[in-house]
Amino acid sequence: MDELNSKKAARATADLVAREANVSRVAVSRAFNPNASLKPEKRDRILQVARELNYTPDMAARSLVTRRSHLVGMIVPDVCSPWESQEIDALTTALQAEGFATLLFKAKADFSMDQTLLTYMRGFNPDSVIAFTENIAPDVLTGFLDRAVPIYVIYDDATEFSGKPASSIYDRLLVRQREGIEQAVALLQGYGARRVAYLGGKQQSLANNERERMITEILAERGMEPPIVVAGDYTYDTAYRATLDLFRVGDGADAIFAANDVGAFGAIDALRHDLGLSVPGDVKVVGFDDIPQAHWKSYNLTTVRIDLEDRVRALVRLILRRLKTPDADPMVETLGTRLVVRGTVG
Amino acid sequence: MDELNSKKAARATADLVAREANVSRVAVSRAFNPNASLKPEKRDRILQVARELNYTPDMAARSLVTRRSHLVGMIVPDVCSPWESQEIDALTTALQAEGFATLLFKAKADFSMDQTLLTYMRGFNPDSVIAFTENIAPDVLTGFLDRAVPIYVIYDDATEFSGKPASSIYDRLLVRQREGIEQAVALLQGYGARRVAYLGGKQQSLANNERERMITEILAERGMEPPIVVAGDYTYDTAYRATLDLFRVGDGADAIFAANDVGAFGAIDALRHDLGLSVPGDVKVVGFDDIPQAHWKSYNLTTVRIDLEDRVRALVRLILRRLKTPDADPMVETLGTRLVVRGTVG
Repeated sequence: MDELNSKKAARATADLVAREANVSRVAVSRAFNPNASLKPEKRDRILQVARELNYTPDMAARSLVTRRSHLVGMIVPDVCSPWESQEIDALTTALQAEGFATLLFKAKADFSMDQTLLTYMRGFNPDSVIAFTENIAPDVLTGFLDRAVPIYVIYDDATEFSGKPASSIYDRLLVRQREGIEQAVALLQGYGARRVAYLGGKQQSLANNERERMITEILAERGMEPPIVVAGDYTYDTAYRATLDLFRVGDGADAIFAANDVGAFGAIDALRHDLGLSVPGDVKVVGFDDIPQAHWKSYNLTTVRIDLEDRVRALVRLILRRLKTPDADPMVETLGTRLVVRGTVG
Repeated sequence: MDELNSKKAARATADLVAREANVSRVAVSRAFNPNASLKPEKRDRILQVARELNYTPDMAARSLVTRRSHLVGMIVPDVCSPWESQEIDALTTALQAEGFATLLFKAKADFSMDQTLLTYMRGFNPDSVIAFTENIAPDVLTGFLDRAVPIYVIYDDATEFSGKPASSIYDRLLVRQREGIEQAVALLQGYGARRVAYLGGKQQSLANNERERMITEILAERGMEPPIVVAGDYTYDTAYRATLDLFRVGDGADAIFAANDVGAFGAIDALRHDLGLSVPGDVKVVGFDDIPQAHWKSYNLTTVRIDLEDRVRALVRLILRRLKTPDADPMVETLGTRLVVRGTVG
């Protein structure tokens, strides 16, 4: 009872804060909006009084006034893949520091599910939406957004979204894979690899298609055979089975370039624990991502790295710049890749 | 331009939906609130018309009317640990199905940071908050919540929150570890282990303290020596180094019971790749959690499992029951544990 009353009391102090700080009610609102202009001393005084009186403004009420929800939506297919979870973790930390909360949405490959999801997401009116999936094309996604301009992660100069140029505006984090992949292929060639297999990610993934295209191109440039393409889906279990098939049904390979680190782990375990082959002695393996598990001693994986901190700062910059200039032309941030050499090529 | 106009148009259709469906404006609001009573046929008709007209209500506006934000806050110390990321993933899926979105907050061990975080979280007025951390005691947390009753994950009958009984109401997911730990100790004993080391988690973690207490108790009951306690922090790298110290500075052990699977991986890699010992030949290893990586062939870890689906359903039940009966006494859901036998004990 006491607790309830004290909570009601806490909610009633917005006017009290104004009175105690000797400012207008509007100034109190402004003090809690990092984007509203207010003299620093005035803001400090108001926030100090608010702290003493245990007052916090309600975001829902504020959102109706400012048209800002302070929410950043993230559409992800799979929170628990090591790659995405570390990105969500770092992004959430960086966004909190800028005054945004992370709103998580899990997309399904099944499109009908995504319609429901998008309708639902729209209700929260996020300030920005990052699509960590290509299942939802920009033209579809923007149809479900009121103000937010979505951000997509794009690899190299892929013909984006099945060749159809999007008519809606979206911002891009462009990852240039060429340099890292080229370094990996050169290292494999230097250690005498001749038959390179590409162990793919999900079939419909643009990142995967682009990675395969780039590897094929670079192998050709260096006078090597085209890759033996092995279907995968970014998971350990599929990579494990696909590697068994490659050596037991197919003719094997002397190097495996996996579309992601987790797939590389599956390949290494199949080679060592089931096929009785040594890595890197018999077969060399390269991954992609450089997740924390890549340095674990059982794998000690040579892999193409995209820097996590750079990636997160680039995404945060896109969000902040777009909020500042809502009508700006499509914006792009660019990231490079580089090879991290460990123990699976040699 | 066309796009902007069509968006404005979409926003203007709330009254249109009412007119087209031949119902009141209030009925339209009710149709979008799963908790408001409305005849099923009426709700279906309204939702059908809304779909045709591409109308979605604004959650911020709705929240002011219903006092429901449809947000569930999750306070986590570390999104990218495999354990937490799989829980967030599964919970987000389950909550979406119930009409809630996941709002992620990253807590720091540093308490001053948490004050800021909590003030910030309060502004979003979440319907429920799950604390996947013990850094913030219930009495502190509820001070920052208006309506939400927080949920804590508690292990066994630990004297909760440093012995001080909390005066605020909170709901609990109670994990009974005894059975799984007992099975693990019995298996170790059956295979002749004599000197068992406990490789701990974070020092201040109640789960860790309780796990250590329980293992000590069960070893004593079975006539075995108390465990050699080795400090860890749930990470691979610390577990790796601590295992080296245990064998190079200390007197070693013939079994290591790790506070979590990731710690067990670090121990296994240190034993095999640095100390030249075989697992399970020379040293047996048991983990805790059963994360997906536990079945990877390089580890193939024997571990104490808490069922993910059971855990998630229990948390969702707590949220839904509390929303239905806000003034209910503290509620508890209970989960068991069991040993999953793989290849690191034998």
